[in-house]
Amino acid sequence: QRRSHHTVGIIGAPFWKGQPKDGVEKGPDLIRSAGLVENLKGQGCSVRDYGNLKFENVPDDEPFGKVQRPRSVGRANKQLADAVHAIKNDGHTCVMLGGDHSLAIGSILGHAASHRELCVVWVDAHSDINTPLTTPSGNIHGQPVSFLIRELHPKIPVMPGFSWIKPCISAQDIIYIGLRDVDPEEHYILKYLGIKYFSMTEVDHLGIAKVMEETCDHIFSKVKRPIHLSYDIDALDPSVSPATGTPVVGGLTYREGIYITEQICQTGMLSALDLVEVNPKIGRTDEEISSTAKAAVDVILGCFGRLREGSHNPDYCLPQP
Amino acid sequence: QRRSHHTVGIIGAPFWKGQPKDGVEKGPDLIRSAGLVENLKGQGCSVRDYGNLKFENVPDDEPFGKVQRPRSVGRANKQLADAVHAIKNDGHTCVMLGGDHSLAIGSILGHAASHRELCVVWVDAHSDINTPLTTPSGNIHGQPVSFLIRELHPKIPVMPGFSWIKPCISAQDIIYIGLRDVDPEEHYILKYLGIKYFSMTEVDHLGIAKVMEETCDHIFSKVKRPIHLSYDIDALDPSVSPATGTPVVGGLTYREGIYITEQICQTGMLSALDLVEVNPKIGRTDEEISSTAKAAVDVILGCFGRLREGSHNPDYCLPQP
Amino acid sequence: QRRSHHTVGIIGAPFWKGQPKDGVEKGPDLIRSAGLVENLKGQGCSVRDYGNLKFENVPDDEPFGKVQRPRSVGRANKQLADAVHAIKNDGHTCVMLGGDHSLAIGSILGHAASHRELCVVWVDAHSDINTPLTTPSGNIHGQPVSFLIRELHPKIPVMPGFSWIKPCISAQDIIYIGLRDVDPEEHYILKYLGIKYFSMTEVDHLGIAKVMEETCDHIFSKVKRPIHLSYDIDALDPSVSPATGTPVVGGLTYREGIYITEQICQTGMLSALDLVEVNPKIGRTDEEISSTAKAAVDVILGCFGRLREGSHNPDYCLPQP
Ligand SMILES: [Mn+2]
Ligand SMILES: [Mn+2]
Ligand SMILES: [Mn+2]
Ligand SMILES: [Mn+2]
Ligand SMILES: [Mn+2]
Ligand SMILES: [Mn+2]
Repeated sequence: QRRSHHTVGIIGAPFWKGQPKDGVEKGPDLIRSAGLVENLKGQGCSVRDYGNLKFENVPDDEPFGKVQRPRSVGRANKQLADAVHAIKNDGHTCVMLGGDHSLAIGSILGHAASHRELCVVWVDAHSDINTPLTTPSGNIHGQPVSFLIRELHPKIPVMPGFSWIKPCISAQDIIYIGLRDVDPEEHYILKYLGIKYFSMTEVDHLGIAKVMEETCDHIFSKVKRPIHLSYDIDALDPSVSPATGTPVVGGLTYREGIYITEQICQTGMLSALDLVEVNPKIGRTDEEISSTAKAAVDVILGCFGRLREGSHNPDYCLPQP
Repeated sequence: QRRSHHTVGIIGAPFWKGQPKDGVEKGPDLIRSAGLVENLKGQGCSVRDYGNLKFENVPDDEPFGKVQRPRSVGRANKQLADAVHAIKNDGHTCVMLGGDHSLAIGSILGHAASHRELCVVWVDAHSDINTPLTTPSGNIHGQPVSFLIRELHPKIPVMPGFSWIKPCISAQDIIYIGLRDVDPEEHYILKYLGIKYFSMTEVDHLGIAKVMEETCDHIFSKVKRPIHLSYDIDALDPSVSPATGTPVVGGLTYREGIYITEQICQTGMLSALDLVEVNPKIGRTDEEISSTAKAAVDVILGCFGRLREGSHNPDYCLPQP
Repeated sequence: QRRSHHTVGIIGAPFWKGQPKDGVEKGPDLIRSAGLVENLKGQGCSVRDYGNLKFENVPDDEPFGKVQRPRSVGRANKQLADAVHAIKNDGHTCVMLGGDHSLAIGSILGHAASHRELCVVWVDAHSDINTPLTTPSGNIHGQPVSFLIRELHPKIPVMPGFSWIKPCISAQDIIYIGLRDVDPEEHYILKYLGIKYFSMTEVDHLGIAKVMEETCDHIFSKVKRPIHLSYDIDALDPSVSPATGTPVVGGLTYREGIYITEQICQTGMLSALDLVEVNPKIGRTDEEISSTAKAAVDVILGCFGRLREGSHNPDYCLPQP
């Protein structure tokens, strides 16, 4: 309960081409303008903001089967992977601000480039594990996990822009929290690979405290290892974070969403964080936008030592009259 | 976790005369138009929609003491009981779309006509167990349970239109979930008859998971038997389902409401379902109406195999590149 | 579960000078107009309404260091302490309607004047335990607890208007529920004095049922003793009670807020209650104001025997046909 002294490297990824809706590329700047850096510093973190990546247009990016904009997604993720790798090599805990969730491909690959033994905690209403051959929508933000899991590799076709992508985790290295909108094909994959997940049914059944206890037991079953937390803001209930592209009723409460981060932080093993799918253009009112941005900031702050009970410096002394 | 293959028979009961507010007779069509049948089919159910009952006007339906419109309520419930009996004899799980909760009289009696051994799970903010002599309001939607319980029979006067109604369950065959607005006379009856209930205090105390565990222990204490689930949409919090006649703060969350259905479904014993008290005319905005209708549809889908973790056909195979 | 027969004495304290925002002095009348007295009587309480205190203007009330309006706060609390003392001597459970939370100084001191052995349950988003030397804002509604705890006395300067105030409880005699916005200096004090608290993290971790169990274990560890419940409406989530001066996201649900009162009532030891920080001028809509007022009334009703399962008189008999 002492104040934190994390060192945080922030990279913005204003990228939307993993899904069709305008606005998610405004996520990084919205989250920053809601006070991210000041608040992190205020709670004792060292912060370096690496700014936003710049993504060039990829011409003639024809669909691959159903899959939309594969070259754009592949190239943006390569840039992101390199940036994350560099930030990790600089010694920071990396915070990637999306952008859509297809960016987890580059973020996790870049992270794995310096920490091969990482595990992934994926907080999301969706499992994002369709393959390019099962995707109903063609949007790559619904597929990133499929490219990352070794056991799925034989089911993944070679896609333009994706040749640099090699899976970096096993099925047992990822765990889901918050699922409530899972395609049948995705459900098959989860079961087929024996991936551990806590859908909202399990959150209701066990309560969030037990969910986090079992999450830590699972990911640290052999040894403590670096955590990549990939946090889709749509894991939270739409009443908390409405400004997102694919909201689903019955989500995590604000409190559950924050409790997750407090517990992840307390493991001491958080090594990289994605905060994705904040889309200010989808908020219907200013309040919906600011509530979503505030939730995103609070998720990040919780990951870096903010506790709801407060905290104080160990050398503090009470003033005397 | 395989996809379901329930066979569902739907009967609409556009009836409002168990209470005074205009609009609850629009419930069946609102719920249908929110996608009930398509979604049930989409999750693997066989569905037969028996359409809406037509209720004739009963002239000169003078109050019986305080009780309003007894002949209309009696006759409508007779029609409904016959319809439910027929649907059960056709081999379906019966879904009755109300209309007000006085319709549970006919729905449960019709169900009991083919399944004498049924038990009742009553999900509601209210206990609806006033007798015609204790009712403060005179509305029969606050009384249906009193006509159904054998032990209360000596306290029930003979009412016009009700002579065909004989109690069909014992006090130990019904269990309540969600109570938070119970009249003193109703509380006396609950205690006097030793009826099992989980008010919101017990839901807060035990959590919804333990509530459902104890619910199943209670109703299956001797043997597994058919369940009649009578689900008043006002059991849910008004922030979830505002479009209802007698909303009460502090209700079940959407998640708790759905968890109940998932657990009931998993018993394999659901035999009939009432979904009542959806009143589109009470919604103040389109969003309030659609949120209520969506909650109603999701309650029904949860009763017939929808799981938040998803599901897949057992014979599914992943496509290969 | 029989109906209650509490005897309740109500005192209104329309005082705002412990904080800067206009409107909190309207709290007592708003809570009354939301039906407090009628509802208390309706549930079997004897009620005496002592009306509102009248606070005279204190001229030349210059700040003491950072601390705003010390003489006004000191004098108003003296009036309140005398009133609460009188109400306790009349044999009532005292209900103090605020006004801002600086009033807890007088309410608790007045209560302690007749019940030295009291303990305090402080339900609040804030710990209100800054000293006049640590306060970041200078508002005394963020400091009341510091004047009441013996162990903090050496850290409290002598302030104009406060010379009559002597601490009356020990650090182990107070317990907090609902904390989520605690200044570093306050966190130091909580830890330094070993004060027991349940922040929202603990509420999430343990659940409200276990929190209340542990609360009762703590305050009654030696012997059952009178409870002073100091309930800041901002303990509840802003979606429940938005009309308050310092709302903080992630608060207690309406249900948790009521469960606390049901459990406190069931101890049989509630001796005085503060309900503070309702500010109708901060509500943005009529609905926000009425929702906050209703929550305040329901908190009070829960303290005096209202149960969500209902209740009945022990001599009730069912009417026979
Ligand atoms: Mn996602
Ligand atoms: Mn998602
Ligand atoms: Mn009902
Ligand atoms: Mn009801
Ligand atoms: Mn407060
Ligand atoms: Mn306070």
